[in-house]
Amino acid sequence: MPDTDDAKRRIAELREEIDAVDCELVRLLNRRATIALEIRSLKPSAQLGLYDPKREEEIFAHLASCNEGPLYGENLREIYEAILHVMKELRG
Amino acid sequence: MPDTDDAKRRIAELREEIDAVDCELVRLLNRRATIALEIRSLKPSAQLGLYDPKREEEIFAHLASCNEGPLYGENLREIYEAILHVMKELRG
Repeated sequence: MPDTDDAKRRIAELREEIDAVDCELVRLLNRRATIALEIRSLKPSAQLGLYDPKREEEIFAHLASCNEGPLYGENLREIYEAILHVMKELRG
Repeated sequence: MPDTDDAKRRIAELREEIDAVDCELVRLLNRRATIALEIRSLKPSAQLGLYDPKREEEIFAHLASCNEGPLYGENLREIYEAILHVMKELRG
């Protein structure tokens, strides 16, 4: 068991790593939103409805196909329900 | 306005881009989970409680600091509430 100061120092380092990962996540979520807005703008021309439950199932299947853990499929599903909800409500 | 086939083709391309972004998001979410599990394992040695509302506020402030849009702060907050909930419930 590391001593208290060592553990605190290591936690501070790991939190910096989390902050870096979070900025990268924000960048990718914004990238995803930009593409989603472009898709939405094309849907009337493509004669597609704005909401497509089949596509949503495709997205969940794709997530599972590239998941190497430690998150479980159900964890990703919970996070993606929030992501897809936000994408649907986006003001373009 | 693009014709129907052009619009459908372009949507298919954009969905491939979304799929690539999603795999990258899955990779980063798993990386975040790995670091979060390491932090959790150090908290008893550091004499820190498992839940730290101050750290949560720090995370939200940090997200806002690296957000360049088109997502709004409130969109990121909605997504991160799901992410932080999942991280808290992780089985290590």
